[in-house]
Amino acid sequence: MISIDLNADLGEGFGRWRLTDDEQLLSVVTSANVACGFHAGDAATMRRVCELAAERGVRIGAQVSYRDLAGFGRRAMDVPPTELAAEVAYQIGALEVFARAAGTRVSYVKPHGALYNRVVHDEEQAAAVVDGVVLADATLPVLGLPGSRFLKVAERAGLPAVTEAFADRAYTDQGTLVPRGQDGAVITDADAVVERSVDLARTGTVTARSGERIPVRARSLCLHGDTPGAVDLARRVRAELTASGVRVAAFA
Amino acid sequence: MISIDLNADLGEGFGRWRLTDDEQLLSVVTSANVACGFHAGDAATMRRVCELAAERGVRIGAQVSYRDLAGFGRRAMDVPPTELAAEVAYQIGALEVFARAAGTRVSYVKPHGALYNRVVHDEEQAAAVVDGVVLADATLPVLGLPGSRFLKVAERAGLPAVTEAFADRAYTDQGTLVPRGQDGAVITDADAVVERSVDLARTGTVTARSGERIPVRARSLCLHGDTPGAVDLARRVRAELTASGVRVAAFA
Amino acid sequence: MISIDLNADLGEGFGRWRLTDDEQLLSVVTSANVACGFHAGDAATMRRVCELAAERGVRIGAQVSYRDLAGFGRRAMDVPPTELAAEVAYQIGALEVFARAAGTRVSYVKPHGALYNRVVHDEEQAAAVVDGVVLADATLPVLGLPGSRFLKVAERAGLPAVTEAFADRAYTDQGTLVPRGQDGAVITDADAVVERSVDLARTGTVTARSGERIPVRARSLCLHGDTPGAVDLARRVRAELTASGVRVAAFA
Amino acid sequence: MISIDLNADLGEGFGRWRLTDDEQLLSVVTSANVACGFHAGDAATMRRVCELAAERGVRIGAQVSYRDLAGFGRRAMDVPPTELAAEVAYQIGALEVFARAAGTRVSYVKPHGALYNRVVHDEEQAAAVVDGVVLADATLPVLGLPGSRFLKVAERAGLPAVTEAFADRAYTDQGTLVPRGQDGAVITDADAVVERSVDLARTGTVTARSGERIPVRARSLCLHGDTPGAVDLARRVRAELTASGVRVAAFA
Repeated sequence: MISIDLNADLGEGFGRWRLTDDEQLLSVVTSANVACGFHAGDAATMRRVCELAAERGVRIGAQVSYRDLAGFGRRAMDVPPTELAAEVAYQIGALEVFARAAGTRVSYVKPHGALYNRVVHDEEQAAAVVDGVVLADATLPVLGLPGSRFLKVAERAGLPAVTEAFADRAYTDQGTLVPRGQDGAVITDADAVVERSVDLARTGTVTARSGERIPVRARSLCLHGDTPGAVDLARRVRAELTASGVRVAAFA
Repeated sequence: MISIDLNADLGEGFGRWRLTDDEQLLSVVTSANVACGFHAGDAATMRRVCELAAERGVRIGAQVSYRDLAGFGRRAMDVPPTELAAEVAYQIGALEVFARAAGTRVSYVKPHGALYNRVVHDEEQAAAVVDGVVLADATLPVLGLPGSRFLKVAERAGLPAVTEAFADRAYTDQGTLVPRGQDGAVITDADAVVERSVDLARTGTVTARSGERIPVRARSLCLHGDTPGAVDLARRVRAELTASGVRVAAFA
Repeated sequence: MISIDLNADLGEGFGRWRLTDDEQLLSVVTSANVACGFHAGDAATMRRVCELAAERGVRIGAQVSYRDLAGFGRRAMDVPPTELAAEVAYQIGALEVFARAAGTRVSYVKPHGALYNRVVHDEEQAAAVVDGVVLADATLPVLGLPGSRFLKVAERAGLPAVTEAFADRAYTDQGTLVPRGQDGAVITDADAVVERSVDLARTGTVTARSGERIPVRARSLCLHGDTPGAVDLARRVRAELTASGVRVAAFA
Repeated sequence: MISIDLNADLGEGFGRWRLTDDEQLLSVVTSANVACGFHAGDAATMRRVCELAAERGVRIGAQVSYRDLAGFGRRAMDVPPTELAAEVAYQIGALEVFARAAGTRVSYVKPHGALYNRVVHDEEQAAAVVDGVVLADATLPVLGLPGSRFLKVAERAGLPAVTEAFADRAYTDQGTLVPRGQDGAVITDADAVVERSVDLARTGTVTARSGERIPVRARSLCLHGDTPGAVDLARRVRAELTASGVRVAAFA
């Protein structure tokens, strides 16, 4: 039976501010990328999200970021590798406290925002993030884009590398994401997103922007939680996956 | 044989800024209160201090603080208990990563600055800090002032409570510290500090500001590392303690 | 003709996060308390709010706060007067740039959250805020609670002191606000809020929690913008004031 | 008579941390680049530096930076132009309060660290910084590297563009700085720095790393204040300039 993991960013508020409907999303996803305080995520929110995730059997991942609350971690930064590695480890450790207190563990790491995009191609920062993960726990899986420098460096360091795909993002023929800002980069039609999700999970292929069918190997699908209708769409994706005979479960 | 622990605040820089001579102090103290990023302490510094401390067999403690870089954690804050407990746990977890990576563990917790002073008498914040420690590790000793609410609440929660004294601070007849800002609150004469250190360790008493001898039970002496001559003074205190037949060792 | 000012907190997002519907509120209020970056308010938001306010002829005020993004400025802090005064001036200056660029000026100052509450009774911090305002502009009016230390100190320093009232907060017989957290402290019934607004504006009195009629002299009414339905309620308040023959206009 | 301005970065502490000996440097330089809170510079320090500068007739400039306390503004960031422009204006406005309170004005703007380097070649960020300056005051001079995009864009926008040189940095034959990290990039020999200072001021040329004499037109020399011996070196530079018949004075 085909199996797919569903991951989403959670706990992305800060203090008085909220962004995602964590409670609802935690009834849909199988993996929760929890913000660790650098782009979002105050300590009390981290604790609550970990408790809820543990209660519902959702796997907890550390969503590590550049230190940039004002930019929500979306501004690429030239952080020296030594600093970046330490900052990644710091975030994982901070989240681990709440995961353990909730009776579970941080069980993967996913970079956020600009850091996610940067380590697709930047070998130095990719290696720094991997160093940070290894510092925290040399057995932690990392989540990233198929073909990215990040996953390559992670595998070389002995970390399990888990690939993910985006049903709501357009792909180039080379299997990379069409950059945000370009026409059609984000797919907003809910039916299309649902259909592409099932397609990605069942066939391991997706229709690129050009119309070509391209292979996109992914063990996890990333759902977005910060747009209106996000929770409903996530529910539909999960329901259709199940209806199509795909098992929705955290990656092994 | 009488035994005393020597603790000092370390890693209290942030990014470009340095405050303490960590390298030198780590050759004197037996317990290092490492700043965890809320009042000071960037991730790379935390890592380096943990590595050095582990190398030299110095015990690592989490110096937890209010979130206040601009005020260096010296401004009391009315943080709601739920937030405060989570923030304390967050800091301990962040430091734990670097302690473990260095082959050791965070083995105690000491509040910093305004939080240290607040939990002497503020039951609610004392309980919140204890909750945060328990969340991180229900067996962690805490370091504090004899007679403080903090140590009382900690003991009630089953945490080992370790008392400390300050050889460079004046005491009232009631055994509390003369508040900074009052005349003679801080003892700057190096000879006096050395003598009081030995006195505190050997006799468990000290001369109060009034001239009275008062009991001050302390398993640890706190040395300050952020003043000119601090390292030299710390070395003299350690040498005199040893010369007086006191064993300098981390508290059990 | 009776005249009343309507003020509300605006621009209280930060980076990715939004809180208030600034655009809508700016079509209702006559004075905009703009967050200046210490509890909320990134620079781009400050700029946009100032432009909109200027366009609509809404007066711009600096909503100054403790430096506390994580706590949204709601946690009282023991900030030494010298630091607090400088931080207040800093915030006013930062906002002034955007007010001037929009063709207008910062024309009053209102403390936010915990600082607002603290300066009701804390002479030292009240004086520090006033010092900060004077540093920035010794002619700036300040907005505060009638009878507060803050307004008294401000008047002594020659600053115009403008009183405000809260139609959605219960009052004690002494004319102070029933503290949040106590039963009935916040009035959530929209009709009651509208009625109390008109009452406050027309009669200068309001029904206290005890049922007593008490005088509450206010040249401005504070509307809240961060709750669901806030904009609709603000519109109703304004419409009813006008319908009752009250002129809604910025304080002189 | 040849005239040269001497500028240095000042007020680069934050809260408890100090970096530069502001008091001493202010008796040497003619222009003070004051940190505005984004990479360093708390409000109380900004105020004090402005007061001292005004007292001594030293011109005050806003040293604007990326928002990055942890990285001291030395990590390049992809800040969108709208945000960057607003952040630049914010910093200028904040400093202006203290300059005015001291009886003077912010009279130029100089980007700091990674932003300084970025706008040498990055047209978009250069334009954003210029937009920010114009937003604050469309007549403010800006300080930068001869030939930089920043100065070109500034001139196009009508801002006076003031060139500066670094006596303690090696130059390429093209007149650009040898990047830090390359061999010989920083000149640490005090005699050489003094000699190059006089050379730059008197002849408008300097010996490049290759041994070639190259023209470097500069109306200001940048002195560094954050190294041991910095103040002494600055004093020697000033004394030698004067002894060589160069007038040391703020740029017109």
